[in-house]
Amino acid sequence: MTGSNLCLPKVAVFGTSTVSRIIVNVLQQEGFQIEAIWGQTPEEAEFLSRELNIPYFTSRVDDVLLRKEVDLIVILCTPALHSQIAVKALGIGKHVIVQSPSGLNQDETLRMVQAAQYYPKLCSFLSNGLRFLPAVTKMKSAIQSGFIGARINLVDVRLNMGSIIGKKYSWLCDDVMGGGVLNVFGAHIIDLIHFLTEQSVTRVHGTVRTFTKTTKYIHGIRQIKSDDFVSFQMEMSGGTFASVTLSSQVCGFVQEFHVSGDEGRLIVRNGDLFGHQQDTSDEDIILFQDVSQCSSGLEDPLLPSIYLNGLSTMFSSLADLFRATAVDESNNAKFRSPSSDSKAKFATFNDAQHIQAVIEAIRTSSKERCWTKVTEKSEEEILMMLSENTF
Amino acid sequence: MTGSNLCLPKVAVFGTSTVSRIIVNVLQQEGFQIEAIWGQTPEEAEFLSRELNIPYFTSRVDDVLLRKEVDLIVILCTPALHSQIAVKALGIGKHVIVQSPSGLNQDETLRMVQAAQYYPKLCSFLSNGLRFLPAVTKMKSAIQSGFIGARINLVDVRLNMGSIIGKKYSWLCDDVMGGGVLNVFGAHIIDLIHFLTEQSVTRVHGTVRTFTKTTKYIHGIRQIKSDDFVSFQMEMSGGTFASVTLSSQVCGFVQEFHVSGDEGRLIVRNGDLFGHQQDTSDEDIILFQDVSQCSSGLEDPLLPSIYLNGLSTMFSSLADLFRATAVDESNNAKFRSPSSDSKAKFATFNDAQHIQAVIEAIRTSSKERCWTKVTEKSEEEILMMLSENTF
Repeated sequence: MTGSNLCLPKVAVFGTSTVSRIIVNVLQQEGFQIEAIWGQTPEEAEFLSRELNIPYFTSRVDDVLLRKEVDLIVILCTPALHSQIAVKALGIGKHVIVQSPSGLNQDETLRMVQAAQYYPKLCSFLSNGLRFLPAVTKMKSAIQSGFIGARINLVDVRLNMGSIIGKKYSWLCDDVMGGGVLNVFGAHIIDLIHFLTEQSVTRVHGTVRTFTKTTKYIHGIRQIKSDDFVSFQMEMSGGTFASVTLSSQVCGFVQEFHVSGDEGRLIVRNGDLFGHQQDTSDEDIILFQDVSQCSSGLEDPLLPSIYLNGLSTMFSSLADLFRATAVDESNNAKFRSPSSDSKAKFATFNDAQHIQAVIEAIRTSSKERCWTKVTEKSEEEILMMLSENTF
Repeated sequence: MTGSNLCLPKVAVFGTSTVSRIIVNVLQQEGFQIEAIWGQTPEEAEFLSRELNIPYFTSRVDDVLLRKEVDLIVILCTPALHSQIAVKALGIGKHVIVQSPSGLNQDETLRMVQAAQYYPKLCSFLSNGLRFLPAVTKMKSAIQSGFIGARINLVDVRLNMGSIIGKKYSWLCDDVMGGGVLNVFGAHIIDLIHFLTEQSVTRVHGTVRTFTKTTKYIHGIRQIKSDDFVSFQMEMSGGTFASVTLSSQVCGFVQEFHVSGDEGRLIVRNGDLFGHQQDTSDEDIILFQDVSQCSSGLEDPLLPSIYLNGLSTMFSSLADLFRATAVDESNNAKFRSPSSDSKAKFATFNDAQHIQAVIEAIRTSSKERCWTKVTEKSEEEILMMLSENTF
């Protein structure tokens, strides 16, 4: 560990999936020291602790959170646990990074928002790496510099991927447990559109479908209930229209992200950025070519290479944030909150609640077959709903 | 002209656009003799008649239709004239091929349907070439042989293209005149989905937008009213769900046509066919690669190379149909109707009416922001509407 890494918080990771392994590798590459790992079972936790040289392992949540040397909690386990672990961790004074989907519903994400507001000096971010992808960063700069004109007319996104369901029945097979392409990838895309347009989503129309209900591995009593195809349209607060298609019906992974305005358009195709300005050439010109070879030897359909690249850059930025804070600090607190400015790029729990509200509106729209207003619940509403259910 | 071409009907072409020129080339390559050309102005007609060695030119519709030596009318002019020319031509006993969009509304296509029903021995087809594209023919065979399973779950289509608006204000700038990506390309895609699934469309949801209202060439008083972005979803009579995105916001032309079922999927990407069966490999395998180089030296955004390839094959099949009929015939009629069996692949005016009904439902859905039932109007309904408007 280099000297500058001494100021990085020590990390505990929740989750033992392939994605967890890949992210542990990324964290270690960025200089973070992984102190503890939590698994659903002691065996899973022990297996990974040996494989990845992590000193402490457990299957008890509190045992991780109460470890004094741990200052950063990275939550990668089943989404059903995200909210409660995040809220508890913030309450004990730990920085928190949560994988999307952030929670199972708005009630859960709202609790996370409240906890984050209560402890503003702690980092509480989503692990939405796409915001940090070089092509996306360059797309955002180009938009801000007026490359496509004064306003964004259309965002048009398409993701084609293979099945994200593994060989074993898991939370991925049930959208109520956080599974499905809308929860897993839709959350990233909604966030990216929000990030790039700097607009929130006001109304949505969507169709959410599950075409593949059984596979060679998952059949019999247990059927797949999570969506494998979603098409949705969104009206944004600043007048932009967005259209998104997510399909896990093909092989491989292709993501195309088009943004167009009166004077031009920009396209992020996987990790590359293309652009075209009206009345210039007849061809899209390449503005940035992705040459990164970010691979850990492990692969997972939940973490395509551009998502992994983005995540690496995100954790690198996070490390820089902690280093900058440590330099700024001269008093006795080892870790203080990084300044709000440097945090601006990260997806917050407020963003998580907006994403969750959009996803819920898309599901409602698909069920009720109509355009649906996106409604972010407030604390009062949730309390009222709970009391109505009780009496 | 070879001997076997002597039995082909002589042709009159309506229209003088680049597309007309390209199709005249195609017709000539397939052995058809072009006898007459009609243009909006005598000058346009004369110019093309000289360029393409067409003996007769005029700007008067009847003068073309009444020419005795002409037996096949190919209608490629502004869609506002399609229906009246087609109906008149059938009435005089000519075979008719009409470019999509077939007419401006269901009233117009219904008149074409009625005329076609009245003269069943005459060919009355749409020039929907995609049905004849080799990759599509092979996709249809694969579907019928059970490659993707017993039923089609999902059809997912995406077209990305450059602007289809030219340098001059024309019908392409106004959707009411037949312009816009929905009329021009949507018609082909709706037809192809109908053709491949053998299902009709029952309900639709769509968003139809015009983002680019002015260009370097078209500005001032005249604005572009035709759509340049459409996203629509369709429920089909046999349970298939279809999702289509048409966008003319990029450069070049890419068409992806995905069809998936319980046991596999097929993808026509431009002119190539890919396929994948569940539980076989991890990659899509190429089933057919397009090596055709169908080019006339002319290019037009309304006729991307796969559309041109399809059209060539369609006119080649049409020539075969006439030759087969001529061989079958031993009586004195020079041209008789080809048998119904060999006609099955061509898009008929009944198909045109269904396409028009779907397009109208998509526009209604976009305006009223709800799922909309596809209603094919009957003659009685149209008569009733007309009488209500009159009194």
